[in-house]
Amino acid sequence: MALDGVRALVFDVFGTVVDWRSGVAREAAPFLARHAPGTDPAAFADAWRRRYQPAMEAVRSGQRPFTRLDVLHRENLEAVLPDFGIDPVRVEAAELDELNLAWHRLDPWPDSVAGLTRLKARYIIAPLSNGNIILMTDMAKRAGLPWDCILGAEVARAYKPSPEAYLRTAEVLAMRPEEVCLVAAHNGDLAAARRCGLRTAFVPRPTEHGPGQAKDLSPAEEWDAVAPDFGALAAGLGL
Amino acid sequence: MALDGVRALVFDVFGTVVDWRSGVAREAAPFLARHAPGTDPAAFADAWRRRYQPAMEAVRSGQRPFTRLDVLHRENLEAVLPDFGIDPVRVEAAELDELNLAWHRLDPWPDSVAGLTRLKARYIIAPLSNGNIILMTDMAKRAGLPWDCILGAEVARAYKPSPEAYLRTAEVLAMRPEEVCLVAAHNGDLAAARRCGLRTAFVPRPTEHGPGQAKDLSPAEEWDAVAPDFGALAAGLGL
Repeated sequence: MALDGVRALVFDVFGTVVDWRSGVAREAAPFLARHAPGTDPAAFADAWRRRYQPAMEAVRSGQRPFTRLDVLHRENLEAVLPDFGIDPVRVEAAELDELNLAWHRLDPWPDSVAGLTRLKARYIIAPLSNGNIILMTDMAKRAGLPWDCILGAEVARAYKPSPEAYLRTAEVLAMRPEEVCLVAAHNGDLAAARRCGLRTAFVPRPTEHGPGQAKDLSPAEEWDAVAPDFGALAAGLGL
Repeated sequence: MALDGVRALVFDVFGTVVDWRSGVAREAAPFLARHAPGTDPAAFADAWRRRYQPAMEAVRSGQRPFTRLDVLHRENLEAVLPDFGIDPVRVEAAELDELNLAWHRLDPWPDSVAGLTRLKARYIIAPLSNGNIILMTDMAKRAGLPWDCILGAEVARAYKPSPEAYLRTAEVLAMRPEEVCLVAAHNGDLAAARRCGLRTAFVPRPTEHGPGQAKDLSPAEEWDAVAPDFGALAAGLGL
């Protein structure tokens, strides 16, 4: 693995560090049992998540000013409820606010905390997520993710894969892009980071989208590092 | 101590969490021995620091766009060298860059790490410093400061005591101002935070400016909490 000169590892989080699908399904289950009995919570998680990229695209395209992900998630929640036969107007706002915090309470993959702890011994480690600062902070505190700082879309005021998300993160770290390596389970994220000059490490998460996942099962380019999990990444880097 | 409803403790750092004067003097000593033998390193630290508020005032007043503290420190370093008989043009830029990192390598007061660790059990803890993100991150990693996230001027794009520095920090935390408490050794910082609706905790650091310090030895207002150190603050809050 060739990460010579790298001083910071920045991580995609949803899917790469934490299992968003199971977590959102678990958090949504009691809500669905009350308001739409019989609904598959995983299908609900998938539907909520499908509105994630379009919502960010409105920011990326300049249609709306930068708006943090908690706000987009909350809007997307109201938008998705009718698909499951729930009228959002008939649900207490406080109940929706609480459900929206599902994204703050996602569990890490089994190797994440131990792997990050090893990587932290040599590198600055930080999320470079589209999730906002308090979302990442709550998640880290609950799950024990040992970040050195919280970076990402809200600090950069830009959503991945916009180049500014990567370049401003390097700028905040006072590093050249090639001193920063993105670790991600998504080939598209890595490709965007590489176009900005960052180094790249691919860690596949073959059950992010549940059983039968078809994409991001293997590296689409020759990334600087490839490892099956964070522990193997640390081992490959001699940690 | 009345901090009911507070969910996050945000900290002034230079002077409150770390001893900047001793640290900068220690880091500058070898440089001064080479370039200005006989100079008192503590006097050099004081002189460098005296240019801190005027440099930020240029940003606060709108004279220049937000510029992170590492850049201001570097400009101030060049400006202060002639006062000690050093021509900055005759010093390698890399040597000045290195000396500028003195601010990344400050030691915490003896109670800081243990106290923060106790406070972290109940509260989100974060710096609300005028120091920039990588400065705070390097400092925390070296000193073991267990921050949950790095907030402050660079995230808020405003320098204390501008109201935006406090209000945007609460906004990023998705909290009402009264759910956030500033912990600081400086009455002026606490007064500005209080005007924004934040709660306030005063922890005096009577040797921040060396022996003979005359200011900030005692609370200037009835702050919500007052404690002689972070351990006592934690104890006063039942932690």
